[in-house]
Amino acid sequence: MARDNGDGLAAIAGRIGVLGSVALNIVALAIYLRGRAAAEKQASKKVKKAAAVAPSSGKPPVACDSVINLDHGDPTMFEPFWRGPIGESATLVIPGWQTMSYFSDVGNLCWFLEPSFEREVRRLHRLVGNAAVEGYHVLVGTGSSQLFQAALYALAPPTADTPLSVVSTTPFYSMYPPLTDFLSSGLYRWAGDANTFDGDDYIEVVCSPSNPDGSIREAVLKSKSGKDIHDLAYYWPQYTPITQMLAHDIMLFTVSKCTGHAGTRIGWALVKDKEVAQKMSKFMEQSTIGVSKDAQLRAAKVLGAVTDGYEHQLATAAGGDANLLFHYARRKMAHRWCALRAAVAASGIFSLPNEVAGFCTFTKDTVTSNPAFAWLRCEKQEVEDLESFLRENKIITRSGTKFGADQKVVRISMVDTDEAFGIFVNRLAAIK
Amino acid sequence: MARDNGDGLAAIAGRIGVLGSVALNIVALAIYLRGRAAAEKQASKKVKKAAAVAPSSGKPPVACDSVINLDHGDPTMFEPFWRGPIGESATLVIPGWQTMSYFSDVGNLCWFLEPSFEREVRRLHRLVGNAAVEGYHVLVGTGSSQLFQAALYALAPPTADTPLSVVSTTPFYSMYPPLTDFLSSGLYRWAGDANTFDGDDYIEVVCSPSNPDGSIREAVLKSKSGKDIHDLAYYWPQYTPITQMLAHDIMLFTVSKCTGHAGTRIGWALVKDKEVAQKMSKFMEQSTIGVSKDAQLRAAKVLGAVTDGYEHQLATAAGGDANLLFHYARRKMAHRWCALRAAVAASGIFSLPNEVAGFCTFTKDTVTSNPAFAWLRCEKQEVEDLESFLRENKIITRSGTKFGADQKVVRISMVDTDEAFGIFVNRLAAIK
Repeated sequence: MARDNGDGLAAIAGRIGVLGSVALNIVALAIYLRGRAAAEKQASKKVKKAAAVAPSSGKPPVACDSVINLDHGDPTMFEPFWRGPIGESATLVIPGWQTMSYFSDVGNLCWFLEPSFEREVRRLHRLVGNAAVEGYHVLVGTGSSQLFQAALYALAPPTADTPLSVVSTTPFYSMYPPLTDFLSSGLYRWAGDANTFDGDDYIEVVCSPSNPDGSIREAVLKSKSGKDIHDLAYYWPQYTPITQMLAHDIMLFTVSKCTGHAGTRIGWALVKDKEVAQKMSKFMEQSTIGVSKDAQLRAAKVLGAVTDGYEHQLATAAGGDANLLFHYARRKMAHRWCALRAAVAASGIFSLPNEVAGFCTFTKDTVTSNPAFAWLRCEKQEVEDLESFLRENKIITRSGTKFGADQKVVRISMVDTDEAFGIFVNRLAAIK
Repeated sequence: MARDNGDGLAAIAGRIGVLGSVALNIVALAIYLRGRAAAEKQASKKVKKAAAVAPSSGKPPVACDSVINLDHGDPTMFEPFWRGPIGESATLVIPGWQTMSYFSDVGNLCWFLEPSFEREVRRLHRLVGNAAVEGYHVLVGTGSSQLFQAALYALAPPTADTPLSVVSTTPFYSMYPPLTDFLSSGLYRWAGDANTFDGDDYIEVVCSPSNPDGSIREAVLKSKSGKDIHDLAYYWPQYTPITQMLAHDIMLFTVSKCTGHAGTRIGWALVKDKEVAQKMSKFMEQSTIGVSKDAQLRAAKVLGAVTDGYEHQLATAAGGDANLLFHYARRKMAHRWCALRAAVAASGIFSLPNEVAGFCTFTKDTVTSNPAFAWLRCEKQEVEDLESFLRENKIITRSGTKFGADQKVVRISMVDTDEAFGIFVNRLAAIK
């Protein structure tokens, strides 16, 4: 049972620890310090030669002396689940003649929304109970990044003299500022920390649970003319107890963090107001003439398989939670957090946010939250720039400075492969 | 043979003609004149009730008294080809566990580009000979619309005081102005007709063959500091003779107009300069964190099937060109243009651009061009607004005013279904 639960993580980590210290030599170190991009390129070339990259997985497998890249929240942790018994029911087959038209449903205000995708989105929310769907419009986007921009576009007045301020509580998701500003739009502009913002007109982005630090957030600004966008990418049972059915005006979700299918690039929005939904839909129409049907059909298959897994309760004695995505993923996440806290304790120079628990209305038990990212702080005075310090230890993370915080803290993905995570915690534990 | 070639179009058109005049009554007309959106919604509702919409086709089937919507270049004309013998080889199967990572190839400057898609893009261009691929970077986008914006982003200086002017020869593609301006970017701004532009710094968009009028275009501005984007969406043998292998700095293509898979939302760019390619890739990274892998795999399958069709020369006595996409589509397009010119002659109040012929290096024969759109002008003095006039006749088109031209001309899609096209030409012929 312990082996089942741990997915061989401890075994891998142990093995790696021995090999890792042997393999670490000056030559290798010099190569790796050339920086992430160069190192990755080299690794990729090596792998290409060996033809070891799985079709469309893209990332080279890691070895004990590899640079471990935990910069992105690349949710490859979920892959073993989808290779399991439920995987077959999620297989997508598209005949050559299908999905040719631009249109999915000419009667829908979001005319490029595949009806099967909308159906599965509503079904999943009804199952989990994390967000209201009755009376909401469902919109689809090329990932939730596109929906975030669509929401800015829909909420900002089209003819204002000055761009509308976009704010979020620090630490905020590092992509919000560039997503807002990369085209120097005259409609909206990034204005930083919501806590220090002064004014009545704004868009406040509320990411809860928070990327990067996992905390539960609410809007901090309360002006009547202000608008909110709720980014709920991580409001799923594997990351946090579902404590209430949220019913905000604009709620964003993504398949990426729910089921792990980041490469499919499908997000969705639940939007209360019809006019806002129409404007957001218009954004996707102008920006990309809608959203890939094939990707939507894929997402519909995957979300449908998740709900089916629960509705059919296919779990067997041998399989345990092999058909129950959220239970499977929560167990894995809890194990990883356990391993990480042990590594942090072993090292002695780091700290993590405190563990938070709550009653989950979906699983009907009291559980701790297991955020998708670790917000790791270094308590050692000599270490001023934690991202660089960890890079010297061949661990790639994202500096706190990108989240509006300081450089003694970093964000680390907790959803990478077992192998990468195992090497990472082992390496972290050894840093003194 | 005649029946094979005509795909039953003449038969359908004939049948429709009789029924159409019977069905046309005041009540129906009043309903349809409520406008496109309302009419489409109604049709869609009707169809939903009858459950007649094919999975993910989205548009209701047309009947003899339907409003015929030829506003968009929705390339559903190609569907019968993909239902034919080649279709099976283009079927895409994706297991539940695949395409999960954000990354497709970490060693590529376009890290989200699926290697199989790049391979098939290069293979197809080598087959057709329409564009150089040696020494070019291949980039993928969510349709060529996203790549167009990526090119603007890459070519415009990031810190200029005033936005860079974006121009194109009139009549220009109606989406260029909104694609350039919808976010009020400080980086670039639509500046209209290239022929009347005065200045040295600009981006000139050259669409050839031209959407909307099918003409072959070259850049008209020649400043050393000016930049060009070549939109070659229609530079394929079914639309125009391939007269040379183009080798411009930035060349945009889309699966939509090449194979008819618009719903897949995949375009690609061939880019000579590495730095420009990097910036364009960065745009896709920021805008949508890459491009759906599932959609890329679909596009790779479809493009691969096209090239395979030619390389294997599977054509049989019965099938004719059933495995040869460009031959099949050229034959259909030629038939349609023939039918349209006959309808225009029968009506007597319209005119079309002159037919143009050339030697095609791909098919090794002299052929006329068969543009994807008809640029139809009304010669009747009383008709001032041709779009409205045709809408009264239940034909939805796009007004010349959206292309920088006058309102006595409209753009009409030539790539819709046989049924819609048949009803359209018949209806047009009857307008006096």
